[in-house]
Amino acid sequence: MIFPLFKGKRKIVIDTSVFINPDVRECFGRTSEEAINEFLKITKNTKIFEFYMPSSVFKELMYFVEEKKLSKDFYYLIRIKSPDKHRILCPAIFFYELVEEMRARINKGLRAAENAVKNVSQKGLDETIKDLRKKYREALREGIIDSKEDVDLIFLSLELKATLVTGDQGLILWADKLGIEWIIPNKFKDFLISSIK
Amino acid sequence: MIFPLFKGKRKIVIDTSVFINPDVRECFGRTSEEAINEFLKITKNTKIFEFYMPSSVFKELMYFVEEKKLSKDFYYLIRIKSPDKHRILCPAIFFYELVEEMRARINKGLRAAENAVKNVSQKGLDETIKDLRKKYREALREGIIDSKEDVDLIFLSLELKATLVTGDQGLILWADKLGIEWIIPNKFKDFLISSIK
Repeated sequence: MIFPLFKGKRKIVIDTSVFINPDVRECFGRTSEEAINEFLKITKNTKIFEFYMPSSVFKELMYFVEEKKLSKDFYYLIRIKSPDKHRILCPAIFFYELVEEMRARINKGLRAAENAVKNVSQKGLDETIKDLRKKYREALREGIIDSKEDVDLIFLSLELKATLVTGDQGLILWADKLGIEWIIPNKFKDFLISSIK
Repeated sequence: MIFPLFKGKRKIVIDTSVFINPDVRECFGRTSEEAINEFLKITKNTKIFEFYMPSSVFKELMYFVEEKKLSKDFYYLIRIKSPDKHRILCPAIFFYELVEEMRARINKGLRAAENAVKNVSQKGLDETIKDLRKKYREALREGIIDSKEDVDLIFLSLELKATLVTGDQGLILWADKLGIEWIIPNKFKDFLISSIK
């Protein structure tokens, strides 16, 4: 079975961008810790959700925040769980799409590298390397699943039949291919409050 | 069901390398057409196999051979069929492994690009670009699934529970992760003859 059906509460999988990215977290708080505590305060009053975070994403979050500044409710309200990646299945077509997208991007990365080699005598070494890194990153990283954290968020959402909350547009694009529900962080506070009223 | 069980004949999925790569096809013939015709002559006497080739791999093969030089038995003995990629499922772990492998290789590709930018003033433009392309290719292409043809061979073998015949060591490595049976082309002629005796 690809999509096990879960009864009971609606499940929400949370990405770090909800609390870390300043543009994204602003509706919750000025700092990451403030944003997390405000989120926990609101969700304590919601009765219909369960919140999850994959281990890899939790570790990423803890890298950015001071744990001792977080509300004691954190570990009760946010469940830490990775997808059961040896048992979860995904359609082969998803794999095809990643390989074809990567192939196009690998070619784009080589063109960026060749241009850098051609232009270094005019632009200078430091400027060329800086520009190369930016263009290479755009070609090979942005808008694609490129980390364990990304894959964990996708497959945990699939496994739990959960709604994914992320500010990463690339991740939303790939979640969409598997029929995963999503919501952007800017609307997440209103979404939570609507469930209380 | 991930692994549908098939009764009857043993299924073999054939990669182009069996007939195209000179080092690999030598047991069958000097040219690609000779190799294919020798293969067809032998397999006409085998009763226990069915041979398959994904559409993408067939098109690749036809790019290298003159169709009119091929035995009339070709389309009877080699079945052209792509995997049912919307229905075939694969474990999420396979996806993780590809993403993690790609991430390491993307970093390696950037290092190759940066080295090229640093060395161009000494090595000259043409030599640097040539060397960059080689190193970039090694970093991002070799030993990894990087084309539709590769993915087709893997998933068709999985769907049919077939044995994959390929000279591509990278492909064997990835087929192994999904428990796909394989045989190298150099041993393929003996394998076929053994089934007749």
